[in-house]
Amino acid sequence: MTQEQSGRVIPLQNEMAEMLFAATQEVFTSMLGSEIEQVPAPEAERSTPFDGVLSLIGLAGALIGNGALVCSEEAARDLSSRLLCSEFSHVDEEVLDAVGEITNMIVGGFKNLLEARVGRLQMSIPSVICGKNICTRDSKADVVVSVRCAFAGGEFGLTVRLAAARE
Amino acid sequence: MTQEQSGRVIPLQNEMAEMLFAATQEVFTSMLGSEIEQVPAPEAERSTPFDGVLSLIGLAGALIGNGALVCSEEAARDLSSRLLCSEFSHVDEEVLDAVGEITNMIVGGFKNLLEARVGRLQMSIPSVICGKNICTRDSKADVVVSVRCAFAGGEFGLTVRLAAARE
Repeated sequence: MTQEQSGRVIPLQNEMAEMLFAATQEVFTSMLGSEIEQVPAPEAERSTPFDGVLSLIGLAGALIGNGALVCSEEAARDLSSRLLCSEFSHVDEEVLDAVGEITNMIVGGFKNLLEARVGRLQMSIPSVICGKNICTRDSKADVVVSVRCAFAGGEFGLTVRLAAARE
Repeated sequence: MTQEQSGRVIPLQNEMAEMLFAATQEVFTSMLGSEIEQVPAPEAERSTPFDGVLSLIGLAGALIGNGALVCSEEAARDLSSRLLCSEFSHVDEEVLDAVGEITNMIVGGFKNLLEARVGRLQMSIPSVICGKNICTRDSKADVVVSVRCAFAGGEFGLTVRLAAARE
């Protein structure tokens, strides 16, 4: 159940989506004291401009790519409250740092699951962006995996893009 | 002229700024047919919300971090025209792809220069973001290097953030 990419075996999309959801569930249960469930993703989610927060972390090693978390400002404030046990009336640097840390934990958990299949991966450092009418564009990837989750404070989307390493 | 970070030698900021400018100059001369010059960076550039384009690419290997290019929509359109020899009346997917490709070439050139000093580095895939009132927040890094450049089509900022690899 794998596909060859430049001689490197990349697990199929469904399997990676399961890994991504499992990693997210683990972070929510152990760190945020909240349950999540998977919900259907809106069509073409990342190609529609949105207002809110985007958190990105690069991956490199056996494969290259990145992991992204996208949510509204409200969901970002709620996630931060759960991580830091404090209320946030607006999206400040502490909220952006908290969303970066949550992304780091989720993508880190996913990375650990994926490494058992593809070999060693390393994460770069997270960048968190907040803005209006944000559109994003990523380089072509060999595999794109998206999972949308609902929790008590709203919804968020996760996307992992992976490509064969260059050279 | 180096500082120790977890046993790994990271070149000093000035030296890395020179590498970043040299890599940028090389891309402009060879690929964009344009000269650039360094200009003073506005205070606290990346902490002030801006309208425009942000292009990000992760780095991992001997160090972890990322490289970012920030510019106005006008500068993004001009850069894309130079790369693709075509006019762009607004920022579309082709413009975002071109800015991603230029970022990839600049950060790639910088990576090659830095590798001679710190060991092997790998780039992730670029993500390009366009929006209004964008604020960005990065994880703490050991070294942050910023260079601001002017060319015939406007100005752009480059920032590289590096930290000791985890584990």
